[in-house]
Amino acid sequence: MPQRQPQHSVGQESIFQAALTCFYRHGYDGTSVRDIAKASGTTPAAMYHYYASKQDLLMDIIGRFMEQSIEVTRVAIDEAKDEPPAQLFAAARSHVLWNASDVVSSFVVNSEIRSLEPDNRHHNIAQRDKLQRMFDAVVARGVEEGVFMTPWPREASRAVVTMCTAVATWYKSGGELSPEEIADRYGAMALSLVGSTLGVASS
Amino acid sequence: MPQRQPQHSVGQESIFQAALTCFYRHGYDGTSVRDIAKASGTTPAAMYHYYASKQDLLMDIIGRFMEQSIEVTRVAIDEAKDEPPAQLFAAARSHVLWNASDVVSSFVVNSEIRSLEPDNRHHNIAQRDKLQRMFDAVVARGVEEGVFMTPWPREASRAVVTMCTAVATWYKSGGELSPEEIADRYGAMALSLVGSTLGVASS
Repeated sequence: MPQRQPQHSVGQESIFQAALTCFYRHGYDGTSVRDIAKASGTTPAAMYHYYASKQDLLMDIIGRFMEQSIEVTRVAIDEAKDEPPAQLFAAARSHVLWNASDVVSSFVVNSEIRSLEPDNRHHNIAQRDKLQRMFDAVVARGVEEGVFMTPWPREASRAVVTMCTAVATWYKSGGELSPEEIADRYGAMALSLVGSTLGVASS
Repeated sequence: MPQRQPQHSVGQESIFQAALTCFYRHGYDGTSVRDIAKASGTTPAAMYHYYASKQDLLMDIIGRFMEQSIEVTRVAIDEAKDEPPAQLFAAARSHVLWNASDVVSSFVVNSEIRSLEPDNRHHNIAQRDKLQRMFDAVVARGVEEGVFMTPWPREASRAVVTMCTAVATWYKSGGELSPEEIADRYGAMALSLVGSTLGVASS
């Protein structure tokens, strides 16, 4: 999994993190530039040094997370054995780990699509489609090769992505299962969902 | 499925619906009592006639939706054949239909848990647990009777509920599939996910 490293300068990163926390707690429309400045211990002018607007900051948060989600999935599929069951297991597993590792970003990314302005929204839809299509391609190939029995590859693929994303809505660190254990089970459940001939406990 | 009927007077219902729309578009913290009054064509005093506070209004929205979600699931399970596969199919199916039939409420209910004050949040957790436990009981019974092969009944049951709830995040009316077709597929996918011996296309 790619390192979750700041790609910003220290100053920009503190504004980015403050905005993320504010959007998580109060939503985009419930957060002012003044709130972000206060939470980051700076001034509105500091935010405008790095971002043209609050919208620009939201788009950095959402776009970056989506870009990394795509990259995480690409790496998982590339590094798995070149067979649909291994690839789907790896993709689902990594998608769970990725979302569970940053439930704050996952929530903001999935709840503030409404707040994106038209161009940003189009870009976001394209990113979401790209992520979904990586799962779709694996499931479609499994069906084609006769190892996934689902009659509904597209719906099954979407259900896999949404159930894995949703782990971020209930995951609490320090719970009964480690993120890795949860991810392993979701990988196996994804196989079960697509009717993998390897069966539910195969991985 | 229970009728989605207003349980309020006309005056209260218009405030309820205006608040729902505002929370959907701008979030709870991004919506003022004045915004709700404006959107409902009334005054803040009108809201305070029916609700002690904006929090009270949010709790009416969330609590009512959750109560009805529980009722929808109870009815689906009760009316299904008294066997775990039929019950799980019916419960998943009805949960999809319920959420797809009101994507606005579903979004607010699932994104504004953060905005509930402690007592309301405890009540909400209890309602969510109650809903989840209805699915859990069906899955546990299926495992006990040897018709569901999942080694992880609790995780599978949670995955079923979250993937069905998430239909509201992507469902668009007028799409390729009707809500009933989507619900049927999710019912069957739920069976597949728990490793039902009836197989993926059984229902």
